[in-house]
Amino acid sequence: MPLTQYTENPRYLRLHEADNVAVIVNDGGVAAGTVFGDGLRVCDSIPQAHKVALRAIGEGEAVLRYGQVIGTARRAIPEGGWVQESDLVMPTPPALDALPRCTEVPPDAPPLEGYTFEGYRNADGSVGTRNLLGITTTVQCVAGVLDHAVQRIRDEILPRYPNVDGVIALSHDFGCGVAFDTPDVQIPIRTVRNLARNPNLGGQALVIGLGCEMLQPAQVIAEQGSGLQLQDPWLYRLQDAQHGFAEMIERIMALAERRLAELDRRRRETCPASALVLGMQCGGSDAFSGITANPALGFASDLLVRAGATVMFSEVTEVRDAAHLLTARAKDEEVAEALIREMDWYDRYLERGHSDRSANPSPGNKAGGLSNIVEKTLGATVKSGHSAISGVIGPGERAERKGLLFCATPAGDFVCGTLQLAAGMNLHVFTTGRGTPYGLAMVPVVKVSTRTELARRWPDLIDVDAGRIASGESNVEEVGWELFRFYLDVASGCKKTWTEVHRIHNSLALFNPAPLT
Amino acid sequence: MPLTQYTENPRYLRLHEADNVAVIVNDGGVAAGTVFGDGLRVCDSIPQAHKVALRAIGEGEAVLRYGQVIGTARRAIPEGGWVQESDLVMPTPPALDALPRCTEVPPDAPPLEGYTFEGYRNADGSVGTRNLLGITTTVQCVAGVLDHAVQRIRDEILPRYPNVDGVIALSHDFGCGVAFDTPDVQIPIRTVRNLARNPNLGGQALVIGLGCEMLQPAQVIAEQGSGLQLQDPWLYRLQDAQHGFAEMIERIMALAERRLAELDRRRRETCPASALVLGMQCGGSDAFSGITANPALGFASDLLVRAGATVMFSEVTEVRDAAHLLTARAKDEEVAEALIREMDWYDRYLERGHSDRSANPSPGNKAGGLSNIVEKTLGATVKSGHSAISGVIGPGERAERKGLLFCATPAGDFVCGTLQLAAGMNLHVFTTGRGTPYGLAMVPVVKVSTRTELARRWPDLIDVDAGRIASGESNVEEVGWELFRFYLDVASGCKKTWTEVHRIHNSLALFNPAPLT
Repeated sequence: MPLTQYTENPRYLRLHEADNVAVIVNDGGVAAGTVFGDGLRVCDSIPQAHKVALRAIGEGEAVLRYGQVIGTARRAIPEGGWVQESDLVMPTPPALDALPRCTEVPPDAPPLEGYTFEGYRNADGSVGTRNLLGITTTVQCVAGVLDHAVQRIRDEILPRYPNVDGVIALSHDFGCGVAFDTPDVQIPIRTVRNLARNPNLGGQALVIGLGCEMLQPAQVIAEQGSGLQLQDPWLYRLQDAQHGFAEMIERIMALAERRLAELDRRRRETCPASALVLGMQCGGSDAFSGITANPALGFASDLLVRAGATVMFSEVTEVRDAAHLLTARAKDEEVAEALIREMDWYDRYLERGHSDRSANPSPGNKAGGLSNIVEKTLGATVKSGHSAISGVIGPGERAERKGLLFCATPAGDFVCGTLQLAAGMNLHVFTTGRGTPYGLAMVPVVKVSTRTELARRWPDLIDVDAGRIASGESNVEEVGWELFRFYLDVASGCKKTWTEVHRIHNSLALFNPAPLT
Repeated sequence: MPLTQYTENPRYLRLHEADNVAVIVNDGGVAAGTVFGDGLRVCDSIPQAHKVALRAIGEGEAVLRYGQVIGTARRAIPEGGWVQESDLVMPTPPALDALPRCTEVPPDAPPLEGYTFEGYRNADGSVGTRNLLGITTTVQCVAGVLDHAVQRIRDEILPRYPNVDGVIALSHDFGCGVAFDTPDVQIPIRTVRNLARNPNLGGQALVIGLGCEMLQPAQVIAEQGSGLQLQDPWLYRLQDAQHGFAEMIERIMALAERRLAELDRRRRETCPASALVLGMQCGGSDAFSGITANPALGFASDLLVRAGATVMFSEVTEVRDAAHLLTARAKDEEVAEALIREMDWYDRYLERGHSDRSANPSPGNKAGGLSNIVEKTLGATVKSGHSAISGVIGPGERAERKGLLFCATPAGDFVCGTLQLAAGMNLHVFTTGRGTPYGLAMVPVVKVSTRTELARRWPDLIDVDAGRIASGESNVEEVGWELFRFYLDVASGCKKTWTEVHRIHNSLALFNPAPLT
């Protein structure tokens, strides 16, 4: 872990001994003239989570956080000065053709044995943490009818099947009116297909199609491994209806009842922790994300990897500036190559849209003290802990191996979450500094706050408060173990997350880089 | 109108005297060997809505439908032969720099006076056909919480306000994680803003934001004309919650109640037909779309234009091949320029994504007898009737003038529908051949079938059967007048469409050409 230093009230956090800036910890920030215990006098009023210069920084000099350059000073910054976004010239991202490969692969840590959870075993070897009826769609045209049917299934049928946790429609904007002749369209196609195979849906969702859409059911039903074929009874096309809307609803309800009866017979069984597929994400980030919540996630991630589980981190634009740190940790050449391939694809995708990764930090990120994408990146990659990177998953692909994986997704919360679901995620963890109430219908979402102030304000939304790491009440290791144990309890269904309690279900959001026609 | 000819059973339809192909009308198609009343002998079995060669067509010869070239024959086609997709070499689309401009502007038809409907007058001059509480969002993060609140508003508050027709959440995938530094991002931004101003929401939706998102409430609340400011009481940001989820729900419900009380005081008033803003669309099209339903829409569109209303047709890729026919009908140079500008933007958008307009027809279109985009286009543009084109609306923009307007949108049903809502549509009409149950929450959707067989099968989804035009039971003029009167009845709320009866509400789908970050 990076060196953590702070003085008593007023407090700041320095993360690495080479750093020439530190982060203000006090709620409400510090006023100009405040003197820290070590004698540092603040010469500007600085908000919480923003950066103070620990010593004078000359114009053009590197500004260091996490021991890494987050920019060079655009102007001379006095000791005790507020280091703001406008004060930093952003470094260029590491060139992809000159990255170190596999030069710092961490050795395997000793296996962590004996940890289990109670899950639902699927025929394809995956394990569900919930037992849900999923009904997917080939095209948005059918979503209105499906919503109507799902409401009636919930009200009229589901109560008879108490071992099923819920019924969800996998609706999306895709399926027609898209350039199906481009290679990029494979991303949303495989996403829809793999979402339907999420472990929490018992391995396969029902499929509702229209009939004339571009995305045909054959592309949604995976021929390999699922045991389902195109003419499978789990499929229904609305255009086959001979008796209008009434028949559509009846047919969907009948299909659902048949599948609910199957799902209802399932029972939880003791499964090794290695059956967990955790998706990690951060959203509404602030400068504490990289100090408290994300390091705790990284610690828990290392524990999961030692237990043989699958752990995914994501968000290409939020690791792009740390590319050199990731390729160095790649387990082998193939993984390093895959990392570079995905980042290169994304560079070109942004370029084609006349943008680059600097468009990432949001106004909220900046208000939260994150000056630019480099600083945000360093804080975000801390989530990945210290394990070797053992695999890379393209957007929409399914995770086929264990260990720490990079799932190459956009950084938007809901798009990233959707792609992690397609990758086979059965548990989601989400760190937030500014606060976001985002939830998913398909998997439990564990919410971790970066600051205690947020956890106090939102006691019915934040599951774990990592702000205790900044206040000194706890530390990364303690919160990391707490998270690890909480993951297993939530996976077993014996604890529920707040998003489950309130049924906060954000929609799926597909990543479709292909043009609309 | 094009020349319509058909013989008795078995029947075909020829649309223009120059045509060398005709469309098979009989349900179930015709078998090889069938002889039509005029002596034409079919030499292949041809499905309904597919094309028969009326005389031998030589290799390389033009194939004509609607009196226009839909392709050249790839092989010699015998008289009575089935003309399939693979038989046609598609013509190149008209070059945008050599189009005729304003060369065939139709003269204004005599005004149609005295037609009215009962609507809700808004402060901005627009008129609602329904009285809805809309609650919009700046970012998808808040959608899960909002859904929860909307459900409670519907159950607990709405019943006390009987003059309000419903409560809808304007949720979408946009708002963060997008390249906000690109010009293209203005399209979804203005779409979200203009959706909130749809006439059926009383002129302005409530706004629920998160707080740290890229799309800030100031960009959603139109400063001009709406009378709302950033600090307006109609706005609530979830990150302002001091007491978590419970407070979020309470605050949204309190806002909603205040707005419902206002909306509930409104009453319908007699308004001229000129206050209608009709959005026209076709989906799940077949070869009958351009013969029955779309010509009837075109006739009704001309009536509406004569009555002073606003009528929009859309779908750039479905008019691109008829660009020369549209620019010729442009009312003035400015309109012709705008048409060319929008088509040029779309050409470049597709090119950037390595596609072109040939990706448009879906497998269902093709199975329905539409060989290629040229043929689909000719059938689709018939919706626009014979009026002069008096304006062009960019994607996400609001219609600011009367008459026949081209609203430049992608062709996907739900994306086009969303952009027409943003343009200020207060009534939607949708023609379908293959059948689609698509509906919108914000406006009534009138469903028109291209074939009687579909209307018979789906009596609880199809509002008007235009298939009677093909069978000879009715004609374009009769069905056109029927549609015109039905529009006014539905707008007045004294008739409901089937999608309203069943509450079939497809989600909004934004058009976002900017890359995700």
